[in-house]
Amino acid sequence: MAMRMLIDGAAADQVPALDRGLAYGDGLFESIRLVGAVAPLWSRHMRRLSESCERLRIPVPDAAQLWRETLDVPRGMPHSVVRITVTRGVGERGYALPAAPRPMRVIAAFAPPQVADSAYAQGVRVRVCDIRLAEQPLLAGMKHLNRLEQVLARAEWSDPAIAEGVLCDSHGRVISATMANLFAVVDGVLLTPALDRCGVAGVARAEVLAACPQTQVGELTLDALLGASEVFLSSSVRGIVPVRSLDRQDYAVGEMTRQLQQHWRDLGFLMEQGG
Amino acid sequence: MAMRMLIDGAAADQVPALDRGLAYGDGLFESIRLVGAVAPLWSRHMRRLSESCERLRIPVPDAAQLWRETLDVPRGMPHSVVRITVTRGVGERGYALPAAPRPMRVIAAFAPPQVADSAYAQGVRVRVCDIRLAEQPLLAGMKHLNRLEQVLARAEWSDPAIAEGVLCDSHGRVISATMANLFAVVDGVLLTPALDRCGVAGVARAEVLAACPQTQVGELTLDALLGASEVFLSSSVRGIVPVRSLDRQDYAVGEMTRQLQQHWRDLGFLMEQGG
Repeated sequence: MAMRMLIDGAAADQVPALDRGLAYGDGLFESIRLVGAVAPLWSRHMRRLSESCERLRIPVPDAAQLWRETLDVPRGMPHSVVRITVTRGVGERGYALPAAPRPMRVIAAFAPPQVADSAYAQGVRVRVCDIRLAEQPLLAGMKHLNRLEQVLARAEWSDPAIAEGVLCDSHGRVISATMANLFAVVDGVLLTPALDRCGVAGVARAEVLAACPQTQVGELTLDALLGASEVFLSSSVRGIVPVRSLDRQDYAVGEMTRQLQQHWRDLGFLMEQGG
Repeated sequence: MAMRMLIDGAAADQVPALDRGLAYGDGLFESIRLVGAVAPLWSRHMRRLSESCERLRIPVPDAAQLWRETLDVPRGMPHSVVRITVTRGVGERGYALPAAPRPMRVIAAFAPPQVADSAYAQGVRVRVCDIRLAEQPLLAGMKHLNRLEQVLARAEWSDPAIAEGVLCDSHGRVISATMANLFAVVDGVLLTPALDRCGVAGVARAEVLAACPQTQVGELTLDALLGASEVFLSSSVRGIVPVRSLDRQDYAVGEMTRQLQQHWRDLGFLMEQGG
């Protein structure tokens, strides 16, 4: 549960029932990992948020104001995840954009999810989901509020030993996990799926791509993934998490994964402590 | 704006900021046209809502309670549209279904949209939208809260002379309008698109199918639509609205459309009065 929230800058825990974020999922969010008062990936979060607002024609929120509120909400928490939700606000009835939109922002701080040290050291078990992501280029890449596919995907399993699910598109191409992006080393080359037709272009993924500019962004088949020498997940909340198995296929934790975990530590994240 | 709202049975106009309806669009809605205290399509709304709840594994709300609240909220309004929103409620963080979901219901009454008498008599102008609906069989047919495609579609035009937009899927097949279903008479046969891969299976559409059991439900190409002898839209809020033009193609208002408008009057709707 959230420790404390700011809604349009005021302490509150409720939003207007007629907000378009609830009515239509008409908005965006960012989940930002903080270490004390530091958010190492902040500028990447703000870049994605502003680009997505422009794509959806939602007025871009003021980043300096968001930063003040993001620092304010988790005060006293040594580690936190701050979720920023930006919606198009209350509108007239119907899908048409309001002539004078008044976006709403919700800033909420949470304790980070519990991730066992063994997950970072030895990796997590992952399954392939049955659901296929629909292809919608006009929404691809954004962390928008239309997330029923992820809800249905995560509802496919309840075994707590399975940490994540791999999502493929309707052509069987690997896209991501349900709440993380996915990387694989295939024939010595670091690969991650292109996300121009579906999927969320994660902020941690962008950090990996910047740190490893030789990464190939393209098509990743399930067969190629099963034959990879190392596989890991990237998440702004959880960092770099090795995959130890995908269904019946096992993987070793590889050198690239270890290097990127070290890169995450160098950024200021403490992956083995506090989640 | 809503005249009055009930949230989980209590007069209120705000919802918890951590509700999954806002976080993920994790819920459903129904827009129900009332004539005084009568909702002619009520049982169809309840059937769709309960079937969709079962598909999304949201506990099915009590229909008798919904009916009491639906009657209560628009008290004193001779004509109204009541929107029932049902979400999975507040949950732990993350996509996983809460172990003990506590669904939330919002009942809000609105004045019906203004529809000119001429729209029912002579028809409305419609355009073909550029956006292509993504195909997701696991979500198709439901009136869920993930409606960004409709928001983007409706944002494609601002000309008030255009009443609606036709949505096609990625294969170019006609699916629906942005807020209505679509029927066409082609070679003397009443056709409406199949909605097993995308689109919302409207309650008014179900009423048309019951009234005209000879209707063919299947594939409708844009070419076939442009060559139709009559085209109309069905909506639980607006009723049966003839299409007078689709881009540069004109249509006459046909006999089938008139018969279904009469059927709507027989159900108790007064399409030419009060919207």
